[in-house]
Amino acid sequence: MKNYSKLYNTNLFLLTDFYELTMIQGYFYHNINTEVVFDLNFRKTPFGSGFIVFAGLQPLIEIILNLKVDKEDIEYLSSLGLFKKEFLDYLRNFKFTGSIYSVEEGEIVFPKEPVLRVHAPIIQAQVLESIILNIINFQSLIATKTARIVESAKGRTVLEFGLRRAQGIDGSISATRAAFIGGAAATSNVLAAKIFDISPKGTMAHSWVMSFSSEYESFEKFAELYPENTILLIDTYNTKNGIKNAIKIFKKLKKKGIKNFGVRIDSGDLETLSKFVRKELDSAGFKEAKIVVSNELDEYIIEQLLNRNAPIDIFGVGTKLVTGHPDASLGGVYKIVAKKIKDKFVPVIKISDTPQKISLPYIKNILRFFTEERMLFDVILIEEEKIGINDTFFEPDFLYLLISLNRQNFKTVKKKLLLKPIVKNGKLVYNFPTIEEIREKTKQNLSLLPAEYKRLINPHIYSVGISKKLKRLKEKLVKQFLKK
Amino acid sequence: MKNYSKLYNTNLFLLTDFYELTMIQGYFYHNINTEVVFDLNFRKTPFGSGFIVFAGLQPLIEIILNLKVDKEDIEYLSSLGLFKKEFLDYLRNFKFTGSIYSVEEGEIVFPKEPVLRVHAPIIQAQVLESIILNIINFQSLIATKTARIVESAKGRTVLEFGLRRAQGIDGSISATRAAFIGGAAATSNVLAAKIFDISPKGTMAHSWVMSFSSEYESFEKFAELYPENTILLIDTYNTKNGIKNAIKIFKKLKKKGIKNFGVRIDSGDLETLSKFVRKELDSAGFKEAKIVVSNELDEYIIEQLLNRNAPIDIFGVGTKLVTGHPDASLGGVYKIVAKKIKDKFVPVIKISDTPQKISLPYIKNILRFFTEERMLFDVILIEEEKIGINDTFFEPDFLYLLISLNRQNFKTVKKKLLLKPIVKNGKLVYNFPTIEEIREKTKQNLSLLPAEYKRLINPHIYSVGISKKLKRLKEKLVKQFLKK
Repeated sequence: MKNYSKLYNTNLFLLTDFYELTMIQGYFYHNINTEVVFDLNFRKTPFGSGFIVFAGLQPLIEIILNLKVDKEDIEYLSSLGLFKKEFLDYLRNFKFTGSIYSVEEGEIVFPKEPVLRVHAPIIQAQVLESIILNIINFQSLIATKTARIVESAKGRTVLEFGLRRAQGIDGSISATRAAFIGGAAATSNVLAAKIFDISPKGTMAHSWVMSFSSEYESFEKFAELYPENTILLIDTYNTKNGIKNAIKIFKKLKKKGIKNFGVRIDSGDLETLSKFVRKELDSAGFKEAKIVVSNELDEYIIEQLLNRNAPIDIFGVGTKLVTGHPDASLGGVYKIVAKKIKDKFVPVIKISDTPQKISLPYIKNILRFFTEERMLFDVILIEEEKIGINDTFFEPDFLYLLISLNRQNFKTVKKKLLLKPIVKNGKLVYNFPTIEEIREKTKQNLSLLPAEYKRLINPHIYSVGISKKLKRLKEKLVKQFLKK
Repeated sequence: MKNYSKLYNTNLFLLTDFYELTMIQGYFYHNINTEVVFDLNFRKTPFGSGFIVFAGLQPLIEIILNLKVDKEDIEYLSSLGLFKKEFLDYLRNFKFTGSIYSVEEGEIVFPKEPVLRVHAPIIQAQVLESIILNIINFQSLIATKTARIVESAKGRTVLEFGLRRAQGIDGSISATRAAFIGGAAATSNVLAAKIFDISPKGTMAHSWVMSFSSEYESFEKFAELYPENTILLIDTYNTKNGIKNAIKIFKKLKKKGIKNFGVRIDSGDLETLSKFVRKELDSAGFKEAKIVVSNELDEYIIEQLLNRNAPIDIFGVGTKLVTGHPDASLGGVYKIVAKKIKDKFVPVIKISDTPQKISLPYIKNILRFFTEERMLFDVILIEEEKIGINDTFFEPDFLYLLISLNRQNFKTVKKKLLLKPIVKNGKLVYNFPTIEEIREKTKQNLSLLPAEYKRLINPHIYSVGISKKLKRLKEKLVKQFLKK
């Protein structure tokens, strides 16, 4: 499936919060359809993580560019008795005609950064809020969770096994996509594998073993049918016996020249059992046999198992990966930052009693300073502003503080702007990379993020500053507000 | 939309874990297509809750009865190189021909109880595992979470506002359905409202207020357009000022004879602000004006606010409701419990090193003892077994213990079996209630569950026993296993 929005047999225009519709009818009647700019930023990282992996852009853009209001939608809205004929007539021709700038999928981003920016008449920009947040929040949450799990697995394979515990049908399908972007190697979800062209993987369930008169027979029958993919589940009855039966099968396979086999352990103490099973396999001469484990894993359990030298090759991770446990949601927010008055964009700020919720005004971009070896720091700046590495950068909330900068390797420092044009005037101007390419990009990006930012618990905080111009603009707007 | 499965523009046969497909090919080749019985039970309640609200049946059954394998699926499976032609030819004619028994949606259920039972040839029963667990686990999780939130709101209205933080598109749509079953009064999600015929609700966002030259003007314009639905968001700039502007608007509305208005508070300290705002409204003569609050609410925060007499009328609950925070998943499991040998079903047990994971064998039902006033206790028994209230019932895991029974009101005790026939031999034999009827049923059921089982924290444990016959069968099968 090239187009994710085609997964749904219904127009997604109505996948919006009701107040977006009552508001846009208000804008329509009060003749307010100013060109505005909204941007999306994450207030904090999930799981206490040191970073966020941005994901969800392609599905989102496909949906936005395919939005329309069909006859059935009009009839439904009309039946609610709140929407007037002129407004519904106007909606009939709805089409997104604005522009979208975004960081690319697989990019590493941080709180406060404007990761996606929409320029459009306010009716269009406003109505997109719910769908933008729904898709980007969830896919970035799962890509980030998976990246942490993959990081904890230190190069070993991570498989996504979450379908049965995911939040609904598409909760599983889009989690699979995001998990792959975050570094999972394959999925158990066949439909998601088909849609996104990811490799489907799986072995056998306890019910397979129980369907034969003995465990040995169940293994034998499986190996007959899948000689090249024989991963045997050895804990249905008793792992000590299970590994003996598996070794008998592996002897037969090896005689046929087959080497790609292994065992899966799905219960019990995974450290003890994996060490025991490894010893049994090695002393039977099967150093090549792989050990796969599953059972309520997450990044903390995997890190602990590997710190204790559990000889595990492959981790199957389900529930906690696809639901982003324990956070389950990422608090991205989408706020108006500029509006056009007499052909010129003027900055807009959202004030709040909570200083951290005061928005960064105006049309912004993210400038990243980095070397060949590592990322150094990011600066949020006003689009088209020129910035040099020797400038002073400020804390986004505590405006009187400078950010601490990593100015090592100054000679070789490079910089790049992270927001790219994706849609211009309703037309796609970006070539979506394949999902394999995004996965590779995530991997490269994470390799440039030093290990101290990737610690699972209490990581080092990556420096994100704002330019002096943006700092002054924020101060000015807050001052103006306080005067009123 | 009458049929939930039509939400998807793709056949859902492939929405299954890959190992289900490799296993069923194995059953096909080894000529194992015995009639079997699988059942679904929840290992524990989520959120430390004293109960689970069962939900998801109608969407699940619609999907199962519409499952087929189309040409594209066959081509995809064939492309994987693991599935043989004869098996794929066999799949072409796939259709569910078995029977399904289930408790009804909105029923209160407890851990260990067999809430859904599938009788079918093993190839069919096995391949349904992932979709059954995906849908029932998630919808029961959210219906349970919502029931707890509604319970904590003590009769006040709860609105579901979770779209933007839900887990994917359908994560939001199916959460809305389950939330309504659990007792939410309405949703902000327009598409879900349309699909399930639920009332869509919403007010205005901060961006509406910021789009006008003053807060007062933004309120005025809103009230002009929605005089009958004027809920004004008063915390964009400063709540003390916001309530003054709102009161000016309410005066105008009242002159026109309109009484249905109120304010929403979305930030700050909700106890302090709601008390302040109530006082302002009352002293201005607007006792009828409603106070709506939102902002990261859950059952604990709501209970605390109401214990402190915060004068709140309506709670808008988003993130934590639609994601089932902090649990995010419900651990339902689907296990084989019987298989046919020579025209007779024989019991099957799944043994585990963890005693709580040893399954209850054979074809079972749930018998509930209750009076007009309250539920008393449940007994898991073998289907068609006759049970009297004076029989002895045993703990499902600790077989040597009797369950403590609430034998009060013995004269008026009634009993009912909870599993109903839903599908027989591939044909629907059940009339699905409307979603309104299910919501009403949940409410009635919960009213029969005494308050001590509904405490949010550390609730009383409802008694679920097993019959003597089932206890003896489990003991016998464990003994047989240990001998081997």
